[in-house]
Amino acid sequence: MSDIGMILAAAARLKGHARRTPLLSSPFLEGIAGRRVWVKAECLQHTGSFKYRGGYAAVSALDVDIRARGVLAYSSGNHAQGVALAAAQHGMPSVIIMPQDAPALKIANTRALGAEVVLYDRAAGVSREDLGEALRSERNLTLIRPYDEPQVIAGQGTTGLEIAEDAAALGISRADVLVCCGGGGLTSGIALALEAEAPGLRARPCEPEGFDDTARSLQAGKVQRNTRVSGLCDAIITPQPGEVTFPIMQRLCGPGIVVTDEEALRAMALAWGRLKLVAEPGGAVALAAALFHADEIEGDDVIVTISGGNVDSGIFRRALDRYGDLS
Amino acid sequence: MSDIGMILAAAARLKGHARRTPLLSSPFLEGIAGRRVWVKAECLQHTGSFKYRGGYAAVSALDVDIRARGVLAYSSGNHAQGVALAAAQHGMPSVIIMPQDAPALKIANTRALGAEVVLYDRAAGVSREDLGEALRSERNLTLIRPYDEPQVIAGQGTTGLEIAEDAAALGISRADVLVCCGGGGLTSGIALALEAEAPGLRARPCEPEGFDDTARSLQAGKVQRNTRVSGLCDAIITPQPGEVTFPIMQRLCGPGIVVTDEEALRAMALAWGRLKLVAEPGGAVALAAALFHADEIEGDDVIVTISGGNVDSGIFRRALDRYGDLS
Repeated sequence: MSDIGMILAAAARLKGHARRTPLLSSPFLEGIAGRRVWVKAECLQHTGSFKYRGGYAAVSALDVDIRARGVLAYSSGNHAQGVALAAAQHGMPSVIIMPQDAPALKIANTRALGAEVVLYDRAAGVSREDLGEALRSERNLTLIRPYDEPQVIAGQGTTGLEIAEDAAALGISRADVLVCCGGGGLTSGIALALEAEAPGLRARPCEPEGFDDTARSLQAGKVQRNTRVSGLCDAIITPQPGEVTFPIMQRLCGPGIVVTDEEALRAMALAWGRLKLVAEPGGAVALAAALFHADEIEGDDVIVTISGGNVDSGIFRRALDRYGDLS
Repeated sequence: MSDIGMILAAAARLKGHARRTPLLSSPFLEGIAGRRVWVKAECLQHTGSFKYRGGYAAVSALDVDIRARGVLAYSSGNHAQGVALAAAQHGMPSVIIMPQDAPALKIANTRALGAEVVLYDRAAGVSREDLGEALRSERNLTLIRPYDEPQVIAGQGTTGLEIAEDAAALGISRADVLVCCGGGGLTSGIALALEAEAPGLRARPCEPEGFDDTARSLQAGKVQRNTRVSGLCDAIITPQPGEVTFPIMQRLCGPGIVVTDEEALRAMALAWGRLKLVAEPGGAVALAAALFHADEIEGDDVIVTISGGNVDSGIFRRALDRYGDLS
């Protein structure tokens, strides 16, 4: 099981490799949200998302003799890039299974970072888990799961250590920490870090409409599934919360917040204009929650993650077309 | 005259106010440039550009009895916002003279930050200096020049202190430091900081085609003027190098590099896709120089500033329309 000791150990391995991303703010965003808004800019992390932390933490925890055989991952794109870069930095081969409708940029980047990419048809009902298991056993690879993997959760949790440290420096002892949530790796990692290092801060999962499995699961007290399989916020679309992550979120997180796709696009435009950051739709849902669901949040401060920025230009242009006129 | 002592004093006053912006990199940009590329992300500074440093340094250096009367600045937009925010943080009124064809977002932001904005017609040949002098004497305001002002140069020079510190941590002892250059405030400030703190690093001004006054002035050994008055790279369009800044640049800088508007737009798209940063055209010229003028640069490493990110969505969309497909 992941715990604060594992997160601190991951932080030690990541030192000098992962970026310590800044916590940014803007008076214009505060005006919209009606409270102070602090933005953890994980889109500035290597490979453009927090997933590099978990990928590096998992790869660096492998025994040296296992590393040589290579690793396997399945991912819509951000975990793919994180694992691909981490594997390359350890001199290891990597095989990444990606849905064929993943953003073209994510597929191209994953290949460019040295991985072998295997595409599958998400809509045809092919299970990436089954495909992965076949490849894994055939080539004797080590599977690095995107979120249901203690070392991955520990790596993502290092984001929470930095949030705790920066919040303390700002004198923030109580606040909601809004986290973009797919399978719950980042959310549960941050929640564990905050429990130990900043117990007045509370992680809250944020999801897009139609993929609110975590919000519903927390409310029901047991795991609920989504029925749709693809959408705008590709980075955080998962069938259900993880088996490892859900109990952590159930124990530590506040209620989920659900935003519309349009709110995510508007948050992307505001991150562009007010923070000078590129957010992808799934990476903007926590900011959207802070800005447009203020009545679901408590306190004078809110901390939000922008979890990634890997977006095709067509979707980014859509956000600017609709919401780019800030003047 | 500005010197390292004045820069260090400015850094002390800016501590806790200006952001220490990150130095970012991307293997994809290194592939284009053919060397390691380190990007100082001043678009993440408060108000979206390095100008907040100079504005805050100048305002905080004023005597308390002068502060109450207020400050005056003229600017196409970034100095405007920097001075407006710095003045507001000191509880002072500010009057900002801006060209009426400045980006709408910059005008709106300057007003929102509490300044009184006075617009003038740049194409009609009205001198902003004359307009400023009339307003200054009428209202007994203190003028804060955008670059020909020692305290402003000292404030911008704090960027150079951070570059020197980060380069040392990376083991970079020799490199060109490419700086987006208008009147030369940032370039001369960085050059002075590097002279004292990292003498193996050399500042080089980067300008857009048609506004290469500094490159030509350095080559000629005396001040040369531009003939055009407006263009895509609005942030760094000035008639000629400053009287204070030019002698500093002449003594310390390497040759200028001149890029096309198309190269600036392409660099904006690459900053968007590879760094997840929003750059404005004038803020992207140094990155464009690093990527597309590699043969004019020496060494295994190059350090570049992205000096600002305040761009209207129409121009940003143009960059993505033309160069946003990175896959």
